[in-house]
Amino acid sequence: MKTISEQLQHKINLKTKPLGALGQLESIALQIGEIQGTLSPQLNKPTIVVFAGDHGIAKEGVSAYPQEVTFQMVMNFLNGGAAINVFARQNNIALKIVDAGVNFNFPPHDDLIEQKAGPGTASFLYGPAMTSEQLDFCFQKGAEVVRKCQKEGSNIIGFGEMGIGNTSAAAMIMSEVCQLPLEECVGRGTGVDEAQYAQKLSVLGKSQEFHGSIAKAKSILQTYGGFEIAQMTAGMLEAYELGMSIMVDGFIASAAFLLAQKMAPGIRQHAFFCHNSAEKGHEQLLAYLQVKAILNLGMRLGEGSGCAVAYPIIKSAVQFLNEMASFEDAGVSNKA
Amino acid sequence: MKTISEQLQHKINLKTKPLGALGQLESIALQIGEIQGTLSPQLNKPTIVVFAGDHGIAKEGVSAYPQEVTFQMVMNFLNGGAAINVFARQNNIALKIVDAGVNFNFPPHDDLIEQKAGPGTASFLYGPAMTSEQLDFCFQKGAEVVRKCQKEGSNIIGFGEMGIGNTSAAAMIMSEVCQLPLEECVGRGTGVDEAQYAQKLSVLGKSQEFHGSIAKAKSILQTYGGFEIAQMTAGMLEAYELGMSIMVDGFIASAAFLLAQKMAPGIRQHAFFCHNSAEKGHEQLLAYLQVKAILNLGMRLGEGSGCAVAYPIIKSAVQFLNEMASFEDAGVSNKA
Repeated sequence: MKTISEQLQHKINLKTKPLGALGQLESIALQIGEIQGTLSPQLNKPTIVVFAGDHGIAKEGVSAYPQEVTFQMVMNFLNGGAAINVFARQNNIALKIVDAGVNFNFPPHDDLIEQKAGPGTASFLYGPAMTSEQLDFCFQKGAEVVRKCQKEGSNIIGFGEMGIGNTSAAAMIMSEVCQLPLEECVGRGTGVDEAQYAQKLSVLGKSQEFHGSIAKAKSILQTYGGFEIAQMTAGMLEAYELGMSIMVDGFIASAAFLLAQKMAPGIRQHAFFCHNSAEKGHEQLLAYLQVKAILNLGMRLGEGSGCAVAYPIIKSAVQFLNEMASFEDAGVSNKA
Repeated sequence: MKTISEQLQHKINLKTKPLGALGQLESIALQIGEIQGTLSPQLNKPTIVVFAGDHGIAKEGVSAYPQEVTFQMVMNFLNGGAAINVFARQNNIALKIVDAGVNFNFPPHDDLIEQKAGPGTASFLYGPAMTSEQLDFCFQKGAEVVRKCQKEGSNIIGFGEMGIGNTSAAAMIMSEVCQLPLEECVGRGTGVDEAQYAQKLSVLGKSQEFHGSIAKAKSILQTYGGFEIAQMTAGMLEAYELGMSIMVDGFIASAAFLLAQKMAPGIRQHAFFCHNSAEKGHEQLLAYLQVKAILNLGMRLGEGSGCAVAYPIIKSAVQFLNEMASFEDAGVSNKA
């Protein structure tokens, strides 16, 4: 009796093309077939959830943009004008915006999911970014929104984020989990200059000195995480539990994934790394995870934009598996 | 007075994102705006033309598949079962199949454009692959089919091919134009093994010895080209003349492009290199052209499949340029 993986590989090999000639599309098709446990996987109601949150560390001069840009960009998402809106519309991807903890009181909006753990985290320079109650809240709410997507028919979900200061949080998480020096994890985020970069690195170094080594994933999240990062980690874990395919966006979403994987190693088999971000550290983070991203376009925007742009490629993989003729179907001579 | 390029760059820079954060999508958007000479470019009726032709050299044991696979795959295209059909359908790309010179008499078919220069080329091991009359015919017909696409409303056109033996022809062209040793240009095509690879390299080495150095693009085409390659070169030149955007597929289409560029260097500004093929030589060919491909998925199928899979990325570039809000529109604070 052949395993589902063997059956999928056999089906792929009999398509009218030289063996392996569709490259990474073949491994994506195989993986989705394995996740869904079928030779004819389907992508249903692709959805991207963008989690937004503010960061106390942003007040320490680690970002090129002021904190209010977080809420302004959330308004931009709600008004349909951001990159993620454009790409989600283009590729028929449902979009949900989550206020995980932005320092702003939004007027009620049909497309905004309010699950605010607080008006931004505390600065981790002086203590943990959040309380354990806030972390628990994020775990509950991050899972909840994913369950909702699944109930609405989605079986593939992308995770994106917005939060001024969150490349700092992600770099701390990466450094801790991968046991890499901060210098290799800290990048320029939205675009700090030389002097600001030195400041960012110094603030993050002091924070790491203050907190010392931290072993547990949840403790790392509580210490350095943003509310949006914690909700993403929880959401990814829930998506895995529910058997969904997971699209991971760039550097920050990958940091959330690092923690999810620390808690549930099997999640790797459900994840698609949509792009290699230009943010320093991301390439090494992907190497640590031993994965190859789908796209390498030098993007570094977040918002789930990498997921939205990569989605048609994932779809191409599923389509060829389902629709391409086999050598036999098409009457094409297979390799002599 | 600002140039159109400056105006486009300014428009891109004012979008609600950090400067440069959409990476290669920004350079694609800039390039399409420049091609069309407008701040609001449009992609109209994207079309891929697959040119098929047979190669005399295939009889010398240079390919893993027998020559009849060329016509069998053309039938597969006409029946909608090949990879290119699947991807073109997925991404709403019109598809045209051209018999540029397949060694088979096809029954008439609405979707097949008959412009056969002959029943396959002669083997270039013993002489030129085609006569000068056949080359002229290919130039006329390759241009004609592109003019037809443009008249039907297309302003972006992809070039794909099918032809057992054509990685050999492409390698000869690359070696000649780039002045690189054959070893660096010859790959495994559809998948030859070690012994067949040695045979392929030996046959191609003897051919190069026989013909000696060739300077002119048209002479290189006549000596080594396939009918499908010659029609692609002509089609690309015509697309450039008509101000269209050109999608170049993998190794063989890029070899056709090499010759087109030799004849009209300005064509580079109109071309998008859709993917970095896994076929040996392609990466170096792209380096010679000093271009970065959009995708790097390890594909090596031809048929225009790389164009079809990359097209949504090109579309994403145009969409963000047209649809994304500016900092001012969205009320987002620009960099302090």
